[in-house]
Amino acid sequence: MTRFSFDISARDGAARTGTITMSRGEIRTPAFMPVGTAATVKGMKPADVRTTGADIILGNTYHLMLRPGAERMAKLGGLHAFMGWDRPILTDSGGYQVMSLSDLTKKTETGVTFASHLDGSRHLITPERSMEIQALLGSDIHMAFDECTGFPATHEAAKASMERSMRWAQRSRDAFSGTGALFGIQQGSMFEDLRAQSSKDLTSIGFDGYAVGGLAVGEGQAEMFRVLDFAVDMLPADRPRYLMGVGKPDDLVGAVMRGIDMFDCVLPTRSGRNGQAFTWDGAINLRNAKFAEDLTPIDEQSPVGQWSKAYIHHLVRSNEMLGAMLLTEHNLWFYQQVMAGMRAAIGAGAFGDWADAFLTRYRSRCAGRSFCRRGDAE
Amino acid sequence: MTRFSFDISARDGAARTGTITMSRGEIRTPAFMPVGTAATVKGMKPADVRTTGADIILGNTYHLMLRPGAERMAKLGGLHAFMGWDRPILTDSGGYQVMSLSDLTKKTETGVTFASHLDGSRHLITPERSMEIQALLGSDIHMAFDECTGFPATHEAAKASMERSMRWAQRSRDAFSGTGALFGIQQGSMFEDLRAQSSKDLTSIGFDGYAVGGLAVGEGQAEMFRVLDFAVDMLPADRPRYLMGVGKPDDLVGAVMRGIDMFDCVLPTRSGRNGQAFTWDGAINLRNAKFAEDLTPIDEQSPVGQWSKAYIHHLVRSNEMLGAMLLTEHNLWFYQQVMAGMRAAIGAGAFGDWADAFLTRYRSRCAGRSFCRRGDAE
Repeated sequence: MTRFSFDISARDGAARTGTITMSRGEIRTPAFMPVGTAATVKGMKPADVRTTGADIILGNTYHLMLRPGAERMAKLGGLHAFMGWDRPILTDSGGYQVMSLSDLTKKTETGVTFASHLDGSRHLITPERSMEIQALLGSDIHMAFDECTGFPATHEAAKASMERSMRWAQRSRDAFSGTGALFGIQQGSMFEDLRAQSSKDLTSIGFDGYAVGGLAVGEGQAEMFRVLDFAVDMLPADRPRYLMGVGKPDDLVGAVMRGIDMFDCVLPTRSGRNGQAFTWDGAINLRNAKFAEDLTPIDEQSPVGQWSKAYIHHLVRSNEMLGAMLLTEHNLWFYQQVMAGMRAAIGAGAFGDWADAFLTRYRSRCAGRSFCRRGDAE
Repeated sequence: MTRFSFDISARDGAARTGTITMSRGEIRTPAFMPVGTAATVKGMKPADVRTTGADIILGNTYHLMLRPGAERMAKLGGLHAFMGWDRPILTDSGGYQVMSLSDLTKKTETGVTFASHLDGSRHLITPERSMEIQALLGSDIHMAFDECTGFPATHEAAKASMERSMRWAQRSRDAFSGTGALFGIQQGSMFEDLRAQSSKDLTSIGFDGYAVGGLAVGEGQAEMFRVLDFAVDMLPADRPRYLMGVGKPDDLVGAVMRGIDMFDCVLPTRSGRNGQAFTWDGAINLRNAKFAEDLTPIDEQSPVGQWSKAYIHHLVRSNEMLGAMLLTEHNLWFYQQVMAGMRAAIGAGAFGDWADAFLTRYRSRCAGRSFCRRGDAE
C-alpha cells in the first residue's frame, strides 16, 4: 500500500505550506527538488544534497531508460540503492526530453518512437511504457506521460496537443501499477479555457498530485504568472501542485504566491557549473575579474562559506572541478534557504512581507547588470 | 623559527618509518603527498583529502605563479588560507613544469625565460625567484630550483645538467628566506658517479631534506630501482628522502624498501578522472563493460564503499563529475592505506613479508591485462 498524504499546515493568501508524507520520508512544501538527471545530482554526493535541505530529488526517465536502462536498473535494485539516495524520488515521464534530446522522433497517438542520442538505438515510449519504466526505476512519484506543447502555439494546436495529453493521462492512470504516487500534468499552453478543460479531465481521472506543465518554455515571467493566476486554482486545492521546470528564485516566490507547492529546475546546478552563484542580493558570476581579490565568502552561512570569492574565482577561471562542486553546493543550499524562508513566512502569516523584502533585495543589484540577464536566459 | 625535525622510530632493512614534525602538523613517513597543482586536489575538498589520510599535499609553483600569481597569493593570505588546507604543503620549484608545459623557453645559467601556457605572457624564473615565489605562496617545504635532466642522457650531458643544478642548489640555499624547510634535489640521471657527486655537493650545501630527482622519466621500474639501489644511500640517513613524481603502488613499495620516505604523484588523482581504481588486486578500469552489473563495491573499507562498481561504471560512462570525484577519493584513500600498511609493517619489523604479500596479490591479476599496462604508461 502506497503511503501518500498531503497535509497543509498553514495558508497565507493563495500560498500554502505543509508536508507530503511518503514511505521514504516527508517532503516539506513548498519544496524544491534538485535535478539528478542521470542518477546523480551533478557534482554532489547524495548526503551533501540532503545536507543542503533537499527532501526529494528528480530523476529523468529518458536518460535512465537509455543508460543504464530500466530493466537493468531494476536488476541493480532500483534508482535509490543504485545512487545511494534513500528519500523520495520523483521521475518525469520522459515525454519532454524525448522530443528535445533524441533524434528522428515520430509521434503518433500510440506514443513516440525515437533514436537514442547516445547510440542511435531505436526506442518506443508510450504512456504504458513510461509507467513501466518509472516503476522499474523504483520512483516514488511517477509523472503521467504527456506532450509538452510547443511555444508559441495557436489555440487549435494547443487544444489538440492538450487533448492528446489528456488521453495519455488516462492511459497512464490505467497502466500505473499502484506502487508510488502518480501525478497528472495540466496542459493548455497560455489559454485559460484549455487549462480549465485539462484540469477538469485530470480531476475526473484522479491523481495524487497535479503538475502545471507547458510553462517555462520561453514565455517569460510576466506571462507565466498571468497563466498561473488562473491555472493553479483550477487544480484540486487539497492535492500538491507542482510547477515543472521552474525556475529562478524570484519565479519560485511568485509561483508560491499563486499556490504552487513543488518545483524542479536545473538552474542552481547548471549555473553552478557555469560559475554563477545565487545570493540574497541577486546572481553573481564568479568568473568576473572583480572577484579576483575578494576575500569575503559568497555567504557566511553557506556550506561553502569557508572559501572566499577569490578562491572560487580562481577555481572557475582554472576550470577546476572543485569550482563547479562548490558553486553547485552553494546554489542548492541557497534554493533550499529560499524555500525554508517561504515555508516559515507562510506559517507565520507573513508571506507578503517576506516576499516583498526578498524580491526588493534580490532584484536591486540586478537592474541593468548583464550577468543577471544572462542568468535569466539560461 | 622554523620547526622541522625528522624522527625515525623504526628501521627494517633500508626501510624506515618515522615522523616529520613541522609547525603546521606532523607528517608520518613513509608519506604520500596528493598533488594539488592549482591550489586544489582536483575534485576533492581539503577536508576529504585529509580524511583519506594525507598529512601533507603538494602545490605546483609554475601553475600558481601564473594563476593567481605569487604576489597576489601572498596578498590573499597565502596558499593554505586560500584553499583551506591548514597542514603542511610542499611546493616544487617550478623547474620541471616550466620546461614541460610552457612555450618558448630559453635556458641560461641565470634561469629560464618562458611564455605562459595560459596567456603567452613572458616570465623569468631563477633559483632566487623560485625561492621568492615559494615563500610568497607560504610553502612549508620549499624545493631547490633545478633542471630535470632529460632521458636518456649521455654521461656528458647528464654531468653538465647535474652540475648546473648543483650551482642552482647553492643559489637556492643562499636565497632561501629561512621560513619553512628547504630540500635539495639529487640529479645525475642513471649514472652512479654523477649521483655521488650530486649528493656530495648537496650535503656540503646542507638541506633539511633531500629529493631524488630525474627518475620516473621513462626509464621503467627496473632501471629506477637499479638507480635507487645506489642513489638513496648516498643521501644523509638522518634526513627525509623524497622520490619525486613516483609512482604506482608497487613503485612506492620498492622505493620504501630502498630507503625512500616521501612521494608525490598525480597517478591516483589523474587515474581516478580516467575511470581507473587502484585495489589490493591491482588496478581496474571502471569503464569496462564487465562492471555494468557488478553490485560489489571497489573496496568495502573505502570511503566510497557505499557505491557499487555498477554505479561508478555508469557515472564514468556518462562522463559524470561524480565518477571522477568518487574514484579520486577512493584512489587517494587506497594510496594512504598502502602507506599506512608499510609504516605499520616497518614498525613491526615485518616489512619484507608485508611487501611480498602486497606485491604478489597486487600483481597477480595484472599479468597480461591491458588495463594494467595502460595504468603503467600514464
